Amino acid sequence: MHTHGYVENKDQLIKRLRRAEGQIRGIQRMVEEDTYCIDILTQVSAATKALETVALELLNDHLSHCVAEATREGGPVAEEKIREASAAIARLVRS
Amino acid sequence: MHTHGYVENKDQLIKRLRRAEGQIRGIQRMVEEDTYCIDILTQVSAATKALETVALELLNDHLSHCVAEATREGGPVAEEKIREASAAIARLVRS
Amino acid sequence: MHTHGYVENKDQLIKRLRRAEGQIRGIQRMVEEDTYCIDILTQVSAATKALETVALELLNDHLSHCVAEATREGGPVAEEKIREASAAIARLVRS
Amino acid sequence: MHTHGYVENKDQLIKRLRRAEGQIRGIQRMVEEDTYCIDILTQVSAATKALETVALELLNDHLSHCVAEATREGGPVAEEKIREASAAIARLVRS
Repeated sequence: MHTHGYVENKDQLIKRLRRAEGQIRGIQRMVEEDTYCIDILTQVSAATKALETVALELLNDHLSHCVAEATREGGPVAEEKIREASAAIARLVRS
Repeated sequence: MHTHGYVENKDQLIKRLRRAEGQIRGIQRMVEEDTYCIDILTQVSAATKALETVALELLNDHLSHCVAEATREGGPVAEEKIREASAAIARLVRS
Repeated sequence: MHTHGYVENKDQLIKRLRRAEGQIRGIQRMVEEDTYCIDILTQVSAATKALETVALELLNDHLSHCVAEATREGGPVAEEKIREASAAIARLVRS
Repeated sequence: MHTHGYVENKDQLIKRLRRAEGQIRGIQRMVEEDTYCIDILTQVSAATKALETVALELLNDHLSHCVAEATREGGPVAEEKIREASAAIARLVRS
């Protein structure tokens, strides 16, 4: 059975995602309580950075496992994996 | 009493933040169910973009109200508001 | 006669832009001399950051002068200036 | 002898970099001629996007060649290449 690159890292990923979820709930509360705009923006930047860290970890795990495995086997599957990873990186850089 | 720029926009902001919260819970489920890394990354990029939209709306409301009000009054408060807004924009561009 | 916000800052802006131009010429040389990909990427990130700094300075000058002036006068021109600035910020955040 | 991933792509990379260099020279002219701030900002966003495209191409070539080669051989060199590529991606995402 195939397992994904982030499997060993699962607990940490879930923890980070829960923290990001908590940050976003905190931002909702700030909006409801009429917090000053700039303070809300600071929290939005922090949550965005937290999500970026999740994405970079996932990507690193993906390169170390799925892509590395595919390139060891070579052929069209390897090329397809690299193309797919490059597209995901582009979405990340542009988001 | 002073109200913040986003007050008229509050319901839409809360709605957007709830949707982003839901996206992040969805990403947690994807990690728990061993979804393919690239599909998770696509959702992380989408959640990041959703947060960026929240930030850009907050910023627009802030410029239209708090900053515009301060510059109408002028003086050091106006300068301080502009400096503060520029710093928030820089954090956003760099996150 | 109307002058733009960055006028007092012109020399510094030109200096920064010349440096960015020099960085990009350096990257061309690196490509021509078959420099290692990762070292080229580091320079591309540096040049991107330099351009971001130019953009943030221009934006700060624009808010402090053109936008502040328009909001002091108020009316539809002020609204238009804020809309325009917000659109420029969005392009920057998304680039 | 070892060649880098972007070698087949060299002409296109140089062309793109020359265009980015031209854009930055154009921005200098705009500043010197007191062009309206927002129009300059639009050009700065365009030049930033052009550099990002260069970076994404370099990265794709690097993954397809240097990293793929290293992972085929395996061992500590492969791990080092992946770590290095992930760090370059992180710099890009955060710039």
